[in-house]
Amino acid sequence: MTGSAALFTDRYELTMVDAALLDGTGHRESLFEAFGRRLPNGRRYGIVAGTGRLLELIERFRFEDAELEYLREHRVVRDATLDWLADYRFRGEIWGYREGEAYFPGSPLLTIQASFAEAVMLETVVLSVLNYDSSVASAAARMVSVALGRPIAEMGSRRTNEGSAIAAARAAYIAGFDATSNLEAGRTWGIPTMGTAAHAFTLLHDSEEAAFRAQVEAMGTGTTLLVDTYDIATGVETAVRVAGTELGAVRIDSGDLPTVVADVRAQLDDLGAVNTRITVTSDLDEYQIAALSGAPADAYGVGTSVVTGSGFPAAGMVYKLVARRGDDGEWVDVAKSSPKKISIGGRKNAARRLDSTRTAREEIVFVGDGPEGEAEFEPGDELRPLMVHLMHAGRADAAWTGHAGVEAARAHRAEVMQELPIEAFRLGRGEPVIPTTYR
Amino acid sequence: MTGSAALFTDRYELTMVDAALLDGTGHRESLFEAFGRRLPNGRRYGIVAGTGRLLELIERFRFEDAELEYLREHRVVRDATLDWLADYRFRGEIWGYREGEAYFPGSPLLTIQASFAEAVMLETVVLSVLNYDSSVASAAARMVSVALGRPIAEMGSRRTNEGSAIAAARAAYIAGFDATSNLEAGRTWGIPTMGTAAHAFTLLHDSEEAAFRAQVEAMGTGTTLLVDTYDIATGVETAVRVAGTELGAVRIDSGDLPTVVADVRAQLDDLGAVNTRITVTSDLDEYQIAALSGAPADAYGVGTSVVTGSGFPAAGMVYKLVARRGDDGEWVDVAKSSPKKISIGGRKNAARRLDSTRTAREEIVFVGDGPEGEAEFEPGDELRPLMVHLMHAGRADAAWTGHAGVEAARAHRAEVMQELPIEAFRLGRGEPVIPTTYR
Repeated sequence: MTGSAALFTDRYELTMVDAALLDGTGHRESLFEAFGRRLPNGRRYGIVAGTGRLLELIERFRFEDAELEYLREHRVVRDATLDWLADYRFRGEIWGYREGEAYFPGSPLLTIQASFAEAVMLETVVLSVLNYDSSVASAAARMVSVALGRPIAEMGSRRTNEGSAIAAARAAYIAGFDATSNLEAGRTWGIPTMGTAAHAFTLLHDSEEAAFRAQVEAMGTGTTLLVDTYDIATGVETAVRVAGTELGAVRIDSGDLPTVVADVRAQLDDLGAVNTRITVTSDLDEYQIAALSGAPADAYGVGTSVVTGSGFPAAGMVYKLVARRGDDGEWVDVAKSSPKKISIGGRKNAARRLDSTRTAREEIVFVGDGPEGEAEFEPGDELRPLMVHLMHAGRADAAWTGHAGVEAARAHRAEVMQELPIEAFRLGRGEPVIPTTYR
Repeated sequence: MTGSAALFTDRYELTMVDAALLDGTGHRESLFEAFGRRLPNGRRYGIVAGTGRLLELIERFRFEDAELEYLREHRVVRDATLDWLADYRFRGEIWGYREGEAYFPGSPLLTIQASFAEAVMLETVVLSVLNYDSSVASAAARMVSVALGRPIAEMGSRRTNEGSAIAAARAAYIAGFDATSNLEAGRTWGIPTMGTAAHAFTLLHDSEEAAFRAQVEAMGTGTTLLVDTYDIATGVETAVRVAGTELGAVRIDSGDLPTVVADVRAQLDDLGAVNTRITVTSDLDEYQIAALSGAPADAYGVGTSVVTGSGFPAAGMVYKLVARRGDDGEWVDVAKSSPKKISIGGRKNAARRLDSTRTAREEIVFVGDGPEGEAEFEPGDELRPLMVHLMHAGRADAAWTGHAGVEAARAHRAEVMQELPIEAFRLGRGEPVIPTTYR
């Protein structure tokens, strides 16, 4: 696999390019929009994620010799189109919601303006990134809100594809997780990594005590010892005996958690290890975390549920042509009109209406205005503009990419959470916490 | 990202290596096993997928300068361990189920024998690949069985991470899908690709007719025209008028499918397009496909449901140390003994008992025998051996990797389906179709 994302593409995108270049319509300036028709069933809000790494993928979207040879050999497109693809790089404009922003049904998350041929072939990469990353971030944000300030680590790499694991770690961090187990996510995105030992390490040794001694020898007494390979109470006693009362933490990965956590806390306190923390990692999801709010757990590790979007592994976003120029140069709004999959055509802008307490009350989508109408929102009125200029003439704004983009998105999400109505944080099923209205 | 999978790794694997090399236990020869404690809720069987590409990732698992520098900078391991990692390549043995094999709770899908340090750090990559790919293959196999011979294409790239999309296409193909929309999967794994046009192509043009003319001009009359951008009956009429009665196919992506498909078939026949096929692609899953069995659909395209494992995006597999040598050189069986997550230690072999009609009746796991006990199964007895030698001294058997491995896995799955009891193919919830017994 090369560094290019050019074949992370559905074949029909290139056959459309081929046919549209042949009849000339491929050069028509076009506006594509990515949005979700609805939130995952029963969720109150979603969190946009993936935008920053998507911009990087679009900048690197090139057809090198290997890709062109594959397309030639399999006669995917005509030779003239291969020449066009060889010169391809995205040169258009992209506006959209900031990464880390809350979103609702119909929010115009990304608007891409370029020739039809240039923009249509980004469909798969745009949707793959936004669908997966936003799914993870939306689930992760719910977990963060019920963790009530206790730190959460993402440790689900093993429960999802090895590539998506890195994206999941990034999305969860943006949504407020504090660390990841995934080293590649640490290297690529600058996310703090964590982790000390698994049951295998204890089983490797001749006794639990020998394992704990080896771990403390290598990692110091501040380490986290996994105490549930055999009997938990014995494990805790051994841990404190080996590491002393300054032991950093114990980890519990099984059992009836609220009870076990309370017992372990009492035992640690009895042993004098009053500063030793308790980390819990056992098939946690947002409901389990909420159930532990009264228990003396100090930190959580979450795996499967966060990397699979807690029941909604794809956020359900679509990428639609909403406007294009005709031969006369005029923009024409377009939309599919078949039943059940109605879209709203036209250029869009969006703002969130805040009340006098700066609480969000409405997601307003302005149809026909277009993303360049940003200037109409004056500071001080109660409309917070939602769309920013992400990419200009094919170049991403550095504020949104790389490590800086991740940190900016994480900070932005924290701010946005402050303006959501309190009902947004209920775990039970419900409607989106604010309505989307079109103007 | 480099070609190495070395940092597709949870941090705790490297800290365990670090501590175990320090006290010498890292050199203890060890046996790790990957297995699923249960099938996804209500499924009757699972399909193993990912094995071939996993072997390739393990062969390429190297710590290059960039990875080592990251580990050094973040003080993940000691300098002595960095030196050991710099020399690392996997040199051990791997046995396991063939890719494409059916599996059941407790089936020992993969057994890795190497030093503890060599084997423990493969945990994340082993599980990421097997969990995701087997999840997709297990869902895909159910769709194939209810499609009753009608071809199915995987077109869900946009509903999952861009990296997992390629793995999903591969897993679905192994499970009996016929093609994918994903070009990278075509290039990397030799899978046939398909696809012609989206609604955007119609909306780009001044009329549906102009769009159809452009498509037929570029792709010929054998193409597939998407007829539901506006009114379906009008779309079908226009399609046949433009392409003639030799039009290859029409695609329907919305509406009340069984009714719509019957109406379109009648209309096509009335128009004389009796050989024009109908392709259906509208949020299909195994239940929708089953509901279409009486409708005159000719081919299916499946997206979200297959790439997300149809409700179970992770197959729930775990990677456990089951045996290791002690200082005296003797093997010791090991297993975690805490409540709820019981594992069965020891070396294992496995066979499927077939009755006189060659129908599977029992999954037998032989504990203590080890994967090299294959010779005990004579041809002619009714035990079909399940484990093969996948990797010897760190080198994968070429029969299981690359394009050849994919085709072998696909063929093997087709054979294995023949031996499953008929109840395996019920869609409703139930128990695994054969019991797993330990001997």
